[in-house]
Amino acid sequence: MKLLQERIRREGIVRSHDVLIVSHFLNHQLDPQLFLAMAKEWQKRFKGKRIDKIMTIEASGIALAVVAGLVMEVPVVFAKKRGSVTLDDDQYCATVYSYTQKKSYAIRVEKDLLKPGEHLLIIDDFLANGQAVLGLAEIARQAECVLEGVGIAIEKGYQPGAALLRERGLDVQSLAVIRSMDPQSGAIEFDEAEAV
Amino acid sequence: MKLLQERIRREGIVRSHDVLIVSHFLNHQLDPQLFLAMAKEWQKRFKGKRIDKIMTIEASGIALAVVAGLVMEVPVVFAKKRGSVTLDDDQYCATVYSYTQKKSYAIRVEKDLLKPGEHLLIIDDFLANGQAVLGLAEIARQAECVLEGVGIAIEKGYQPGAALLRERGLDVQSLAVIRSMDPQSGAIEFDEAEAV
Repeated sequence: MKLLQERIRREGIVRSHDVLIVSHFLNHQLDPQLFLAMAKEWQKRFKGKRIDKIMTIEASGIALAVVAGLVMEVPVVFAKKRGSVTLDDDQYCATVYSYTQKKSYAIRVEKDLLKPGEHLLIIDDFLANGQAVLGLAEIARQAECVLEGVGIAIEKGYQPGAALLRERGLDVQSLAVIRSMDPQSGAIEFDEAEAV
Repeated sequence: MKLLQERIRREGIVRSHDVLIVSHFLNHQLDPQLFLAMAKEWQKRFKGKRIDKIMTIEASGIALAVVAGLVMEVPVVFAKKRGSVTLDDDQYCATVYSYTQKKSYAIRVEKDLLKPGEHLLIIDDFLANGQAVLGLAEIARQAECVLEGVGIAIEKGYQPGAALLRERGLDVQSLAVIRSMDPQSGAIEFDEAEAV
């Protein structure tokens, strides 16, 4: 998606070969008009699929997901993060390993918010190793929901997440796919196949 | 706001005289269409005021704030929560005392996201003791921004937050003001003055 690529080029800060700061428009300051354009692009890419509900994870996925929910006219459920894995009969729970923080954390969704047979679309801001999406997919599996696809804002194309999810048969649609980043020059190379 | 009151009556769960669960539509599952109606109501109530940016706090304020930002055509900044108070030259920081959790936590906003002279509107889901809003107001003060008002979804009218904020000259607009809740019957009494 050209609009998102341009915004990343203009306002993204390349901290290292792996770390991209997008706090000016995506995950600390938020640009609702950009999110609206992104939501419409996801709607186009998942057209023809039945989507009953959008699922995401707190905190930075929430804003993107709620605008997508507004455009697609479906409710949004966000998984809450919790420090430790706790057993609770009223909640679906999955464990997510964070490569950034080098530790696992639990995510949870109240059971009565996901009904068996519901068709879900996962929305998230970043896709790198795919662990957060796998956690959400595990909750969808426990809830006996059908996972129709995964809409991602920024995919780090040089990391294994997207391939891992596609191997599991998931339809992953990333609006910007980064091929490489150069912290010296600040240059960001995108996979132009995604630049519709 | 009648629409929000009705939704609270229909789907809110009164756990105690003080605890209202609204996870079915406000802070776990989210109803984007309801949020759109709420955003339009805040826009009406703050009409005539200059608003350059909306400020909120993660996680449950984000969804309401981004839809309000979409309607009012302004960016949104959310304060991040952090376990401990850390000094960082690049960030505005304030301490918020949580009566629910009986402990303080730090909130922070990157300095370059708030510019001196910007006019801000705070949006949040709940107002009880007003401590989160006071923390956001403290960050606005540090950034030399002008705080134009505070838009709240659900105010617990029997708690001191709203009075505390109004004493400081803040224009607080709550879309539903709860006067009392009865955990036995599940009945919720609203302040009907707000029921426009």
